[in-house]
Amino acid sequence: MSNEHNQSNKSNSKISRREMLYRTGAGGLGLLIGASGLGTITALGNTKSDKEEPTLKDDQVPFYGKHQAGIVTPPQTYAYLISLDLTTSSLADVRQLFKDWTVASEKMSQAKLIDSYEDNLYVPPADTGEADGLTASNLTITFGFGPTFFVKEGSDRFGLAGKKPDCLKPLPSFAGDQIEDQWTGGDLCVQVCADDKQVAFHAIRNLIRIGRGAVTLKWMQSGFQRTNGSNVKQSTPRNLFGFKDGTVNPRSKEEFNDIVWSNGREAPWMKNGSYMVMRRIRMLLEVWDRTHLSEQTKTFGRDKVSGAALGQKEEFDEVDFEKKDENGNLYVPSDSHIKLARGDGSQKILRRSYSYSSEMDPTRAQLDAGLLFISYQKDPFKQFVPIQKRMAGSDRMNEYIRHIGSAVFACPGGTNKGGYVGDSIF
Amino acid sequence: MSNEHNQSNKSNSKISRREMLYRTGAGGLGLLIGASGLGTITALGNTKSDKEEPTLKDDQVPFYGKHQAGIVTPPQTYAYLISLDLTTSSLADVRQLFKDWTVASEKMSQAKLIDSYEDNLYVPPADTGEADGLTASNLTITFGFGPTFFVKEGSDRFGLAGKKPDCLKPLPSFAGDQIEDQWTGGDLCVQVCADDKQVAFHAIRNLIRIGRGAVTLKWMQSGFQRTNGSNVKQSTPRNLFGFKDGTVNPRSKEEFNDIVWSNGREAPWMKNGSYMVMRRIRMLLEVWDRTHLSEQTKTFGRDKVSGAALGQKEEFDEVDFEKKDENGNLYVPSDSHIKLARGDGSQKILRRSYSYSSEMDPTRAQLDAGLLFISYQKDPFKQFVPIQKRMAGSDRMNEYIRHIGSAVFACPGGTNKGGYVGDSIF
Repeated sequence: MSNEHNQSNKSNSKISRREMLYRTGAGGLGLLIGASGLGTITALGNTKSDKEEPTLKDDQVPFYGKHQAGIVTPPQTYAYLISLDLTTSSLADVRQLFKDWTVASEKMSQAKLIDSYEDNLYVPPADTGEADGLTASNLTITFGFGPTFFVKEGSDRFGLAGKKPDCLKPLPSFAGDQIEDQWTGGDLCVQVCADDKQVAFHAIRNLIRIGRGAVTLKWMQSGFQRTNGSNVKQSTPRNLFGFKDGTVNPRSKEEFNDIVWSNGREAPWMKNGSYMVMRRIRMLLEVWDRTHLSEQTKTFGRDKVSGAALGQKEEFDEVDFEKKDENGNLYVPSDSHIKLARGDGSQKILRRSYSYSSEMDPTRAQLDAGLLFISYQKDPFKQFVPIQKRMAGSDRMNEYIRHIGSAVFACPGGTNKGGYVGDSIF
Repeated sequence: MSNEHNQSNKSNSKISRREMLYRTGAGGLGLLIGASGLGTITALGNTKSDKEEPTLKDDQVPFYGKHQAGIVTPPQTYAYLISLDLTTSSLADVRQLFKDWTVASEKMSQAKLIDSYEDNLYVPPADTGEADGLTASNLTITFGFGPTFFVKEGSDRFGLAGKKPDCLKPLPSFAGDQIEDQWTGGDLCVQVCADDKQVAFHAIRNLIRIGRGAVTLKWMQSGFQRTNGSNVKQSTPRNLFGFKDGTVNPRSKEEFNDIVWSNGREAPWMKNGSYMVMRRIRMLLEVWDRTHLSEQTKTFGRDKVSGAALGQKEEFDEVDFEKKDENGNLYVPSDSHIKLARGDGSQKILRRSYSYSSEMDPTRAQLDAGLLFISYQKDPFKQFVPIQKRMAGSDRMNEYIRHIGSAVFACPGGTNKGGYVGDSIF
């Protein structure tokens, strides 16, 4: 972005080029809108425009704020998502854990060591060190509470059962589900995202380390997108089926308020928070790669190269689900992915997914790869569940995917300086 | 890098900023040397200075050349390394496979589709598509032949047994080895490296796809380093123990000729090639993270923060293995990693390792992470083996690591336009 452009925005809050492109709806479009378009984009919760954080560098996302970072933050290149089970029965321990996590997270979000260690030769270093010298790389750390945090095996383990929101419960079983225990549930989750995998790994490792004695690791997943380098267009990322994925996603503050952020009515402590749904979706790449282009495009309902809905020209052209070709057939098949995802348009979610590649499945000598699906919404049961019910029943794509993991977490609102993550709940 | 700087180098071959920093020996140093220092750096094999490839873009590494790319190429951020077993017994099939791989690899190295597919609706697309629109991201693809390519279970399977170099054989068992079958050997290997994980995944996936019917996947590994973005100093990367790793590594053409490139005496077809050693080294992070800083530094023989050898001030200060402190103790312990790696200094290798993180080891609920050690040398048995023998016996680090995988591959010299990978052997 030219200096001229930056100057023309002096009166606006400072918004990074990357964030602007993201908010304005991807790549070329953002560039076409240009500077004058920015006037219509209002500041979000955790952005560099927060006046309280004047010293943050370009690739630092504020940790403190109205909302937790890592939800409406433009997706970084890498993600780790872990689920933890609490081994302590003491609420005081849990509080202390979240206090320690808060201090460490805020420091890491500014590329600082958790603590300096040079002069303490005879204790383990306070920071594992592998991110020393690296920049923050837009690191965000997002915490959530699973249903079993409140009630586990019938027990009100921390005296907080009364605070469990009704919509925080395991997802129902969907047609075709092949959920494996190893990828389900958990008392707590931590999502770490960054544009540098080493920075992300460092963060998740140190949070696990800090939790030692209070939590055990239940599952751990990682994902990637294409690199958001300055030399790569900020276009919609492609998934491992080679299709653009995320063309339709909320991007404005109004949409986030409608779709993502809790207003606290279901549970006051969740105000400004959001519910995360995780689905580990294995993609049968070898089967897909043997499939005709025609079948692939009908499965998605989009052109593979351009990303345009079938019957349209450009990726962001409005989909016409009624449009028929000269033979009277619908361009967008009724069992296509985009048709079933849309439904009547009344359910919307914020998708924030990553591709995963866990190398080889040794039992089949095939690639173990797929989608680490992550979505955020006000109510998983009013938003994600009806969408997934439609798709599980008849989505043409089911031949090529397997849902093997499932979890839901309540991610509370953001933390204020002086407070700690989740303090609204304790 | 400023335009001014670029202009002052007009008389030199075109060398990317990243490559310059790498060759001049890391970060700050490179910047201090400045433009005038470039005069002493001679062009390497496959670099953008090759006059035959005038159209290559900034983040493209030539596929054709005297040497295979991906060996002395400055390490990219991500690596996939796979091992394949041949299922065909026909030499003609193998030749065809390498011809197909050559065509595909050269195209992918220039960020081109393997073939356009838009107009072929009723066949599977010739390219899986997930890198469509992404840049080459310095993609390199490097091929190698394992011992079993030549002779498997006593059989001269392709009539090429006579061409097997003596030094291409499985590594000996070292003290403490806990090698697992799933991470050993293989008839062929393919190393794919790129600065974008999606680009790297796309390449390895398509090469596997092309090999379908002739090969099966034996193992697959991936690794990462810190991101080489323009906002990150080109300093020596840190490994997952938090220490700088790679301070001592050959970097000049003369060193590469001495250490890396075969002169073809052991096997004429290997001229300008190199032998790859792979060791999958699990790092017991939870144990390490409980270890005092003093023990960590003595284990490496280096300061954790600066990377300086103990007793020295700066990372690149010459190590003094005889230097003693005021109590008469050696600064660099005789069982430290750098002392045993050095030995008498007569064995040298080019290390090109990556960190790996395979998420969680479910049997222990701990991190499954470590080092995907990759080295290149003229002769694994004269270079890698004596070094590893010293370390396996008494390296203080053995308490914190487990060697669980091992393989050796002969990577032939580079391919000329019109030829195909490995044509010198067939």
